[in-house]
Amino acid sequence: MTIAAEVICVGTELLLGDILNSNSQYLAKELAALGIPHFYQTVVGDNVDRIHKAIEIAAARSSILIFTGGLGPTPDDLTTELIASYFNTPLVEFPDVIVDIQNKFTQAGREMTPSNRKQALQPVGAALLPNPTGTAPGMIWQPREGLTIFTFPGVPREMHRMWRDTAVLFLKTQGYGQNSIYSRSLRFFGVSESALAEKVEHLFNSTNPTVAPYAGKGEVRLRISARAVSEVAANQLIEPIEREIKQIAGDAYYGTDDDSLASVVGQLLKAKGQTLAVAESCTGGNLGGLLTEIPGSSDYFLGGIISYADRVKVDLLGVNAADLAAEGAVSETVARQMAAGVRAKLGTDWGVSITGIAGPGGGTDRKPVGLVYIGVADPDGGVVGIKYQLGSTRERELIRHMSALRVLNLLRLRLNG
Amino acid sequence: MTIAAEVICVGTELLLGDILNSNSQYLAKELAALGIPHFYQTVVGDNVDRIHKAIEIAAARSSILIFTGGLGPTPDDLTTELIASYFNTPLVEFPDVIVDIQNKFTQAGREMTPSNRKQALQPVGAALLPNPTGTAPGMIWQPREGLTIFTFPGVPREMHRMWRDTAVLFLKTQGYGQNSIYSRSLRFFGVSESALAEKVEHLFNSTNPTVAPYAGKGEVRLRISARAVSEVAANQLIEPIEREIKQIAGDAYYGTDDDSLASVVGQLLKAKGQTLAVAESCTGGNLGGLLTEIPGSSDYFLGGIISYADRVKVDLLGVNAADLAAEGAVSETVARQMAAGVRAKLGTDWGVSITGIAGPGGGTDRKPVGLVYIGVADPDGGVVGIKYQLGSTRERELIRHMSALRVLNLLRLRLNG
Repeated sequence: MTIAAEVICVGTELLLGDILNSNSQYLAKELAALGIPHFYQTVVGDNVDRIHKAIEIAAARSSILIFTGGLGPTPDDLTTELIASYFNTPLVEFPDVIVDIQNKFTQAGREMTPSNRKQALQPVGAALLPNPTGTAPGMIWQPREGLTIFTFPGVPREMHRMWRDTAVLFLKTQGYGQNSIYSRSLRFFGVSESALAEKVEHLFNSTNPTVAPYAGKGEVRLRISARAVSEVAANQLIEPIEREIKQIAGDAYYGTDDDSLASVVGQLLKAKGQTLAVAESCTGGNLGGLLTEIPGSSDYFLGGIISYADRVKVDLLGVNAADLAAEGAVSETVARQMAAGVRAKLGTDWGVSITGIAGPGGGTDRKPVGLVYIGVADPDGGVVGIKYQLGSTRERELIRHMSALRVLNLLRLRLNG
Repeated sequence: MTIAAEVICVGTELLLGDILNSNSQYLAKELAALGIPHFYQTVVGDNVDRIHKAIEIAAARSSILIFTGGLGPTPDDLTTELIASYFNTPLVEFPDVIVDIQNKFTQAGREMTPSNRKQALQPVGAALLPNPTGTAPGMIWQPREGLTIFTFPGVPREMHRMWRDTAVLFLKTQGYGQNSIYSRSLRFFGVSESALAEKVEHLFNSTNPTVAPYAGKGEVRLRISARAVSEVAANQLIEPIEREIKQIAGDAYYGTDDDSLASVVGQLLKAKGQTLAVAESCTGGNLGGLLTEIPGSSDYFLGGIISYADRVKVDLLGVNAADLAAEGAVSETVARQMAAGVRAKLGTDWGVSITGIAGPGGGTDRKPVGLVYIGVADPDGGVVGIKYQLGSTRERELIRHMSALRVLNLLRLRLNG
């Protein structure tokens, strides 16, 4: 049999379209990075005969079977027991798992139920694949020469952690990942995917490294991927391309790999020893939420005021009631006063504000859905207000998210320049 | 052979993880809505032998094969010719397609390339499945009695339009969609998936309607799905089961379908004509963010104070500095004073607060990561503080999210009771 991995996702919810199958994409990327060929993906429901059939087909054509889903405590979670029965192997209870599940329930202040015991059953001869963040462990098992089976829970967060912590190491000890793919993602804000792609189009034909564009929620990425024997060798391939892209993109480039606009702003504030406060209307706290996603953000983020009601803008932020009545809550004047107000109230170096119409209701001809004003009060006492029209056909959550990202990007440019 | 559809997505880019497979989910939902059973999904790369093998396996177990991808003009677009060759059928050029492609190129001000001619080739006997928005048409073909094959391009926008405009009509003329599946999701908070599943286990063997559990980010759902000729008939099947589940679940049931804890709390506040303000420490604004996801939340949510720094807790919320120094920011006393403080400051009926250790740093033996205190100040002036241990192995974002959901659930129970 050829060496090849096959991803088998188990779950009727996938066949009903309740869930987007992001696990297949995650594993596909990871297998590519390790240089492991990957020829098929299968999705099968929670059904005894059909899961047995899927195992039969996959085991005949692939040497590494990676299962996700069906490890939970309920009767329709069948993956482990059906893999075992297909290979005529009895299940055995792993006492360590019982203890681990019990501890996790105790920590969460809950009672372990009898059905959770099922999650401690694995085929005789299998090795546990520990699940640090959930109750369902997976397994690594070689039921016969030349066939390796992995099982993971379907919850993406748990699966990713188990893959990174344990499965990758195991695969590397088996000799995979000698010639690996090393990737670096460059992140951009304030430029469209097509505009950026046109500027770097000449790089898309490169084969090692390759360059590929991706559009995310309000931002654009370019991924540079090199195949090489070591990270050092990969970097020598990646760095000239990276330099070229950064030069072409200028200010629009803001970070690499796991950077976010919030983490970059945080690093800049920290480097300058400056502090920040936020005044939020239409985003309702989401800008503070993004800033505090970053561990250690208390070094520079002191807090803020969510002034969803007009009265709170006046009472807590010191917005002038007459200005508010004359120009409306969604106006440059109010945005400026909110930013200056929160800076003064919290005694920070910087104060920023957002006020806008997120929709779906509340828009008018003069102030349509998607109209957003952003205020920035700087350490020297200067205050600016900037108007954005984020598009009246966009959905409420995207308008709110884009508004928060625009503030962070403005701050980044101001802190940089 | 049983009547069942199988979705086969063709494309090496899926096996490299470059693309998230949203086509499978779209088709899964559509098939469920039409009441067409759907037991398997397959992904296969742009490879002659493996595509032939995938056709062989699928044609042996499913009566409707739906292909997406591999209809383009490049040499690695193989789907149509390999389906034809598998069934020993020659390809024929459809002149209308040539004209259509030529028109589309002319409209776009571009030259049609010779390779585009390939897109006009379909198996003898196949019917065209027109593509109004792209150059690659699909086909509907019955290569033998009891087997129907659809092909679609991989571009989701083009595929959706072709599905809606043509494929659905064809399937309805074949008698599908008479009996559709109608689903209702009941939502629960404060109960684990396993505990809830044990209580309603006797319902999992029901076949019409079916009942199935799902665990999400901090909450649990039970989906009741009925197969019936109309929504009215489906409701007659669903409602007795729904009543039984609600009675068993008691307080843990909070809503149905698109309800969220934030929307349910909003409805309760609105019904009572009461208002709410939030004081957030570790969640940094995310609770306000969740509340303002709901359109119209300005009717009851006035705003809040993000008191990330201790100084803001004292200065803006009136937390007692001596208490804060003695008991720490993460304490019942501070949670109570934050809730009472924000209620007084914003003049609302209710004030709620969150203060906790979201990690990954900042935990101690006495106050580990995951320790969270929630405060609730009610319209009568009563204030309570409640301690939660959300588990020190959980990730920062999950601890923050769970904290916000706990507050909303507490509010829901208080508003209900």
